[in-house]
Amino acid sequence: MIIDKLFDNVAHKGHVCFGLDTDYSYLPTDFANKFSTLGDGLFAFNKELIENTCDIVACYKVQIAYYEAYGMKGLLAYKKTLAYIKEKGCIAIADVKRGDIAKTAEMYAQAHFSGDFEADFMTLNPYMGLDTISPFLQYVKDKEKGLFVLIRTSNEGAKDIEYLPINENQRVYNVVGEKINQYGKDFLGKCNYSSIGGVMGCTHVSEAIQVRNDLESTFFLIPGYGAQGGKAEDIVLYLKNGNGGVVNASRSLLLAYKKEAYNNVSFAEASRNETIKMRDEILSFV
Amino acid sequence: MIIDKLFDNVAHKGHVCFGLDTDYSYLPTDFANKFSTLGDGLFAFNKELIENTCDIVACYKVQIAYYEAYGMKGLLAYKKTLAYIKEKGCIAIADVKRGDIAKTAEMYAQAHFSGDFEADFMTLNPYMGLDTISPFLQYVKDKEKGLFVLIRTSNEGAKDIEYLPINENQRVYNVVGEKINQYGKDFLGKCNYSSIGGVMGCTHVSEAIQVRNDLESTFFLIPGYGAQGGKAEDIVLYLKNGNGGVVNASRSLLLAYKKEAYNNVSFAEASRNETIKMRDEILSFV
Repeated sequence: MIIDKLFDNVAHKGHVCFGLDTDYSYLPTDFANKFSTLGDGLFAFNKELIENTCDIVACYKVQIAYYEAYGMKGLLAYKKTLAYIKEKGCIAIADVKRGDIAKTAEMYAQAHFSGDFEADFMTLNPYMGLDTISPFLQYVKDKEKGLFVLIRTSNEGAKDIEYLPINENQRVYNVVGEKINQYGKDFLGKCNYSSIGGVMGCTHVSEAIQVRNDLESTFFLIPGYGAQGGKAEDIVLYLKNGNGGVVNASRSLLLAYKKEAYNNVSFAEASRNETIKMRDEILSFV
Repeated sequence: MIIDKLFDNVAHKGHVCFGLDTDYSYLPTDFANKFSTLGDGLFAFNKELIENTCDIVACYKVQIAYYEAYGMKGLLAYKKTLAYIKEKGCIAIADVKRGDIAKTAEMYAQAHFSGDFEADFMTLNPYMGLDTISPFLQYVKDKEKGLFVLIRTSNEGAKDIEYLPINENQRVYNVVGEKINQYGKDFLGKCNYSSIGGVMGCTHVSEAIQVRNDLESTFFLIPGYGAQGGKAEDIVLYLKNGNGGVVNASRSLLLAYKKEAYNNVSFAEASRNETIKMRDEILSFV
């Protein structure tokens, strides 16, 4: 089960999920100018970052929107980035938030669990129902693949649907979480977490302890650290015995080189230092 | 407003939204064998179908999953298909069901409303909230683009989340529908429908008349015809004065050539005949 590899990575390398939401404008100009195509530049930037952080992160999350936005040449950089993460023996989460059913979902599974865009995990959107998940299960069972299904996100708009009250004790996201947790029990690793995990934003922490207890087999992908306001002391509320979740940061790590403190080091060294800082900050509260 | 063009198409060419969910296995073998690459075959098949139906359909819906599944070469066929729809002066709906926020959503807008993958409409998934929609509005306002946001889908799993009860009178999908309808009022065309439409499955028809009345400015993209069990007499309940919606069919049109009745005609002619049949069946109930 892929979840055991992720669990071990957290135990040995910390909780950081490095978000490669790489906008081309994030590349330092002198670096970008070395490459004749946008796609080459994007990939080269990611490659340097991966090379310099793969020993200190649990996994990488690659947000496909940033590559789709540049069309075919962007997606070539996406493909190469995933291949390089694999080459380095690291775990890649394809942040694609796909959500569709039947044959269409099968095609998405084929797209992101094999071929050009093969990743270890992919994110899914459950709005259409649990039949958005079933076509992926064969890959979870037989091909060492995993899922992170959106449960509760860290954006302002989470109140619009995810927070709608269903009854006195439950909101939409609670129902989704319970279903995912239940569904995941057939795919438990040795670590007792499931290869079907959940996305759990860390910006509403009042219910953190309850959520962690209720969804006992659900490994969390936790966005919202840094730029979106999540703090290390809050994030650890979503962990259990120091494991059970990875914490994503993107812009703060990608653009670390713009900080004054890193004026005299390369962009990759700046990202490495910032990643170590984030890792240690989380570990200090575990 | 792009919605006026779609409304006019419905008035003059009928309600059919031709779904180009083209699996490579759908191509007749002797046709597929003419092409040296999978991507060339996929595109050539779509091209023949578009050429033979563009005068009798309201629009095309291209389901990106079927192209993503084949990686870079599939996406090249996706790109060429969209370009050819545009060349023929027709409307393309990118069925991508993306749903993300802030900068990521901006990147998705750039991806599907400009460049290699430019379409006229795209489908969105609202689970994360209304801030999944706002980054697209600039394109709706200034660039003749439109959206179809998932409200209620036609699959079995729709009961899992979309049908959760919020209060005595409302389910999750009612709340989503109301928000979309309200949101869309700032983007009304001359036809009095909004360029922000909704996906409304036709398989639960008991509430059809209420839904059509409640969401008075929302143009519907209606899946579920044919293969998924929706009938023409049910579908017209989601229309008003014979307009206000397009009806998608994919497999029944793509694979028409497999029907015995079309044994002696080309695959494109079979699809054309089946499209005319569907168009006329819907019109007969309007």
